[in-house]
Amino acid sequence: MINQTMKKLGEERSVIRELFEYGNRRKAEIGAEKVFDFSLGNPSVPAPACVQEEIGRLLREVPAEVLHGYTSAPGDPAVREAVATYISAAFGAPMSASYVYMTCGAAASLTVALNALCNPGDEVVVLTPCFPEYLVFIGQAGAKTVEVPTNGAFHLDLPALERAIGRRTKAVVVNSPNNPTGAVYGEEEMRALGGLLLRKSAENGAPVYLLADEPYRELSYGAPPVYPMNVYGNTLVLYSFSKSLSLAGERIGYIAVSPQCADADGVFAAVCGAGRSLGFVCAPSLFQRAVSACLGKSCDVELYRKNRDLLLSGLTACGFSCIPPEGAFYLFVKSPEPDAKAFCERAKKYELLLVPSDSFGTEGYVRISYCVARSVIERSLPAFGALAKEYGL
Amino acid sequence: MINQTMKKLGEERSVIRELFEYGNRRKAEIGAEKVFDFSLGNPSVPAPACVQEEIGRLLREVPAEVLHGYTSAPGDPAVREAVATYISAAFGAPMSASYVYMTCGAAASLTVALNALCNPGDEVVVLTPCFPEYLVFIGQAGAKTVEVPTNGAFHLDLPALERAIGRRTKAVVVNSPNNPTGAVYGEEEMRALGGLLLRKSAENGAPVYLLADEPYRELSYGAPPVYPMNVYGNTLVLYSFSKSLSLAGERIGYIAVSPQCADADGVFAAVCGAGRSLGFVCAPSLFQRAVSACLGKSCDVELYRKNRDLLLSGLTACGFSCIPPEGAFYLFVKSPEPDAKAFCERAKKYELLLVPSDSFGTEGYVRISYCVARSVIERSLPAFGALAKEYGL
Repeated sequence: MINQTMKKLGEERSVIRELFEYGNRRKAEIGAEKVFDFSLGNPSVPAPACVQEEIGRLLREVPAEVLHGYTSAPGDPAVREAVATYISAAFGAPMSASYVYMTCGAAASLTVALNALCNPGDEVVVLTPCFPEYLVFIGQAGAKTVEVPTNGAFHLDLPALERAIGRRTKAVVVNSPNNPTGAVYGEEEMRALGGLLLRKSAENGAPVYLLADEPYRELSYGAPPVYPMNVYGNTLVLYSFSKSLSLAGERIGYIAVSPQCADADGVFAAVCGAGRSLGFVCAPSLFQRAVSACLGKSCDVELYRKNRDLLLSGLTACGFSCIPPEGAFYLFVKSPEPDAKAFCERAKKYELLLVPSDSFGTEGYVRISYCVARSVIERSLPAFGALAKEYGL
Repeated sequence: MINQTMKKLGEERSVIRELFEYGNRRKAEIGAEKVFDFSLGNPSVPAPACVQEEIGRLLREVPAEVLHGYTSAPGDPAVREAVATYISAAFGAPMSASYVYMTCGAAASLTVALNALCNPGDEVVVLTPCFPEYLVFIGQAGAKTVEVPTNGAFHLDLPALERAIGRRTKAVVVNSPNNPTGAVYGEEEMRALGGLLLRKSAENGAPVYLLADEPYRELSYGAPPVYPMNVYGNTLVLYSFSKSLSLAGERIGYIAVSPQCADADGVFAAVCGAGRSLGFVCAPSLFQRAVSACLGKSCDVELYRKNRDLLLSGLTACGFSCIPPEGAFYLFVKSPEPDAKAFCERAKKYELLLVPSDSFGTEGYVRISYCVARSVIERSLPAFGALAKEYGL
């Protein structure tokens, strides 16, 4: 027998993917401009010019056998140095290259960090609604997922976290700006979380790590999010350039282990060991170098903000109840009927492709990915209006 | 406690890496041209022109948000189609896109395939000497490594394999052209292996899979190696473009599941599930597309052949006993004293950096990576001569 857990994981149909494929069939049937596909979180704003310029420069100036050759397992030393310097300068968090591990994107950052930290029987807390693959990655690392719902505004519910974190808790995963809600946790609540984790670590006599999954950091429409290492020592920042530089397909990111971690050197060694064990050594070399020249740059976030504003005002005007997104490129909308899946089915009649929040571990909402051309949003508003009317909004 | 297995894996000093770092220090001390670093398997021949041309074309012609965006989890459909078409045409092995999974390089191909197939307690056979990370990957997948030495010429020892394959054997890993010996298994021995695996599968009532790790396929100096799927049905080809296109750092390869596999669809689903679980979905998108335009192309293999010939004749003339490499870019040389590590230490006195075969699970040999500039080999020959003299060769 082959591994049945893996077979089942591979056979599972993702709701998001099914919707995306339905959308493609529908576009072929009735014309692409008549289908409003809000299913996927694939960046719609192109990479900033610095990316293409730097790729061009690297191709011209660096010999191919060096440019495309292996780097060291944790990454090119100059790239790791540049990332550490950037973190120190931009966030005032002391960082050195020896705690930076270049990874093959956000998923790799998560699986490597989880495998580095977890032992069988450990628990990892996630805040729902959340990215569904968290549960897959935590299971792969041999740990158990503990789901803690966020509060009514989809921010941190500290009393609930207080109750959920126990002797077996190895880590808490926090994703801010958030997929799927667009919430950005404020400095005060993050400091309160830091305080809670510090107290729980003392009670446990062992660190409860904060895994800060930060692919949307630069996509924040208010004050920049607080840097997690500045509110809590036992922090690993799991970063990806997927959204900031619109390089989702290029699989490039990093893990930064806070030097304030208890046994930071041991944690970093475990990160290296997990990378080696899973096969994640030497992140893609051209893009390691390309992103290191674009640190602190980002795609044109204003385009996403404009999409957000247009969609938020349009849907609110129709009578929908929306959580105003503070970041990322998702709008979380209350389903006008309790069953969000039924609502999404009805939305399909208007060629609106929305993802029910059940996929993210929460009922009664839908996620609208507004990383689409502005014209898609403009054309979709009458459809949303008709859908609202059907519900008597 | 963090995961101690991972910590230990991360702290382990690789002999090859230590040697490489020693070499860098030494070059700084006495000048780069005086150090003969044969430690690493990083391609020295640049990528063929088609790679750079195709990257340029893609950057000019494909919108950045498409080019650098997510592809489907198993890879871009057109890329998978191109790979399948190539395999069918080049090797006469029926293949369809639905059995091709694009991966983030050779390590990913191995860990994904092993996690797809193995259950706890399964055994995986490797042929020694072998790439040392095989043991790490097999352990990560929860299986047990069974080491079977190759024969005196470093080819398949079928009677030994016959004895080693038992009820618990899930797979046999074969790497031809071979790292570290340079052996290329002939059609006859591969057919005999296929026959053996077929018989063992029948005895077990369950497939014993052949995992053909093929990053060196195009680096063969004799007849092209037989395509493993053509000698045995239950085969997964684990391919990487690292060596053929000199793209080792770009992490791009694929898993091709033979349609002849028992339950090929189930195996492919398990590959998808393992990719998802480990975080290996959507291989780097620019390079997926770049390599799909360069299928069947390769770097200038003649340069490696000339290096091989020069080194082989030079070392043989000095009195060393070498295994003539049939492929890859490694020369396996018999240590003139039983302790290969001691021999390597002595070689260092002549600024010759060689890897003892103990790292590959076999005693009494050294590996010389001849993926270096020809001038390095030319300048090194007097040093090899002096070393040989010390041993009275």
